[in-house]
Amino acid sequence: MKQTYFTPGPAELYPTLYKHLQTAMDEQIGSISHRSQKFRDIYRFTDTQLRTLLNIPDTHGIFFTGSASEVWERILFNCVEHESFHLVNGSFSKKFYDYANALHKYAHVFEKPFGEGFDYTEVDVPEYAELICVTHNETSSGVQMRPTEIHKLKRKYAKKLVVVDMVSSAPYPDLDFALVDSAFFSVQKAFGMPAGLGVWIASQTCLEKAERLQKYDNLTVGAHHTLPTLWSHYKTFETPATPNVLFIYLLGKIAEDFNKIGIDTIRKQTDEKARMLYKFLDASDDYTPFVKQERHRSQTVVVATTKEPSTEVIASAKQAGMIIGTGYGKFKESQIRIANFPAVSIEQVDLLINQLQK
Amino acid sequence: MKQTYFTPGPAELYPTLYKHLQTAMDEQIGSISHRSQKFRDIYRFTDTQLRTLLNIPDTHGIFFTGSASEVWERILFNCVEHESFHLVNGSFSKKFYDYANALHKYAHVFEKPFGEGFDYTEVDVPEYAELICVTHNETSSGVQMRPTEIHKLKRKYAKKLVVVDMVSSAPYPDLDFALVDSAFFSVQKAFGMPAGLGVWIASQTCLEKAERLQKYDNLTVGAHHTLPTLWSHYKTFETPATPNVLFIYLLGKIAEDFNKIGIDTIRKQTDEKARMLYKFLDASDDYTPFVKQERHRSQTVVVATTKEPSTEVIASAKQAGMIIGTGYGKFKESQIRIANFPAVSIEQVDLLINQLQK
Repeated sequence: MKQTYFTPGPAELYPTLYKHLQTAMDEQIGSISHRSQKFRDIYRFTDTQLRTLLNIPDTHGIFFTGSASEVWERILFNCVEHESFHLVNGSFSKKFYDYANALHKYAHVFEKPFGEGFDYTEVDVPEYAELICVTHNETSSGVQMRPTEIHKLKRKYAKKLVVVDMVSSAPYPDLDFALVDSAFFSVQKAFGMPAGLGVWIASQTCLEKAERLQKYDNLTVGAHHTLPTLWSHYKTFETPATPNVLFIYLLGKIAEDFNKIGIDTIRKQTDEKARMLYKFLDASDDYTPFVKQERHRSQTVVVATTKEPSTEVIASAKQAGMIIGTGYGKFKESQIRIANFPAVSIEQVDLLINQLQK
Repeated sequence: MKQTYFTPGPAELYPTLYKHLQTAMDEQIGSISHRSQKFRDIYRFTDTQLRTLLNIPDTHGIFFTGSASEVWERILFNCVEHESFHLVNGSFSKKFYDYANALHKYAHVFEKPFGEGFDYTEVDVPEYAELICVTHNETSSGVQMRPTEIHKLKRKYAKKLVVVDMVSSAPYPDLDFALVDSAFFSVQKAFGMPAGLGVWIASQTCLEKAERLQKYDNLTVGAHHTLPTLWSHYKTFETPATPNVLFIYLLGKIAEDFNKIGIDTIRKQTDEKARMLYKFLDASDDYTPFVKQERHRSQTVVVATTKEPSTEVIASAKQAGMIIGTGYGKFKESQIRIANFPAVSIEQVDLLINQLQK
């Protein structure tokens, strides 16, 4: 029986994915050279669709990596000489911070307990931090930081670079790329694709920083997928190494489908489904929304504490053809995580709520 | 019209790939969690099939990256404190060397002209080189280094680590992993899959080196896909970050298909097809094998200099439904490259030879 995946990534595949995959196989996209005009056309198409969808200006390039986790490393290598600053409130923002330490950067951290979020007013960025690392959506705890708060942070610290981890929320957050220097996501979340591709958006300012580190500071910015090599190949819609051509093709097609619906509609549908889920959780005796502050509640990954052991809730849902996520880490057995991505419809969310009510 | 791809990667998809992809879609492999038992079973299965196919002992782990190019960086980060040594005779072995320089390692090089190969007797490895970087098959020039020569090199320099780039030849070369510390390949070559997955085989000795660099030398070994994190997750058949689950599944299935045929048969078929191609080229007035020394001629990527501009040869073949590779770099218009991977049959190679004869 086909299950509906409400897991926060890998997640339910977007309904049109199968059709696009079939077309890709028919057109032998898996065999074409990444140095061919056909590939350059695919890269250009995906680039155009993502620019439209996320409102990305010409100042920013769009690059492909193996995963979003890889981008954590790349941005730190390319945009931090000495010091980075991290807002940490869950496992993934923590890993970004850990990566900085692993690269021997001097990493500052402002940490909050699991389930709590950040507001602009309470954030003090250390004087010498070069890069502010923000996680728009903490997949582990279901906490978001609102784009307006991120924008205010950049306005206050205009000379520092701001990078936004939007792994489990893109294309939902309406980021202003005049203020956001870099952002990244992976395709197995809200884009409804299998895992295996990271997308890195970075500005000319990020590139200049990487070039400065390389040339004048004689610092290594890594060897693979450095921003200068990614960018020089990007000028002709190529990549430094053989990329995941098939997934770049599929991403372009999914982004095109999103654009046909319209990003405003997708955001409204996301809001509506999130409203349904939180309304149910708030009213229920069996579930409690984990995130207390409404403004910090994620629209795309809804986390609830369960009265029964969450394993039982998950098992019952599975019987009914619905896969929901476990809690993360130590909350594995006391919480559930429900992804609210475009691949699941209002009707499917309704079915899930009915199931959870049982 | 469906074309037959004789390009050296991305290449012709292995005939069973379509069926496995369909099964994967039916089983919703693109949605399963990389922290689930189902994923661990897939990793274990692919691991087992690759061990059988390539005769990999328990001393070595098998890890997944975004590409083989990424492995160049990972092995240099994890296994070189100061000095590496590179056998360079084409564009890809050169890039491996470039990566070492980019990471600020002291990289020694023994370079030969494009089209020439290495024999064990002529190689002197500098005293302080820690890692010997060998390219079994230079995809750009169609030159191979025979496994027996690689093994002799390791025997002479037993205390140094030897890593073999087998990107465009695996599973063809019969490497002895009692002598080869590490090897890597990507799936879009002889495994007949779309690009987007690198496979890294590394020994316990490599792991110990990485741990030593981290702990005692206080050196960064990178942050993403470090050997210690890959290995610690590998113990339970997991990965540090979300991997390309779908492609790991497909790789296991293709490797299983190869094992059903038997690696000996696959190697014999490869030899037979290579013999046909070189015999034709040797006898032809219109083509000359680029690699003069027979012992250095690649069995998996056959490169020929053409009398006519190679663009014309390639255009005619395309008309007949066969895609062959251009020459690499400055040889783009004077050479052709023909991949001899398991995905193309003896009959298809025969058709190609008939076409080239026209």
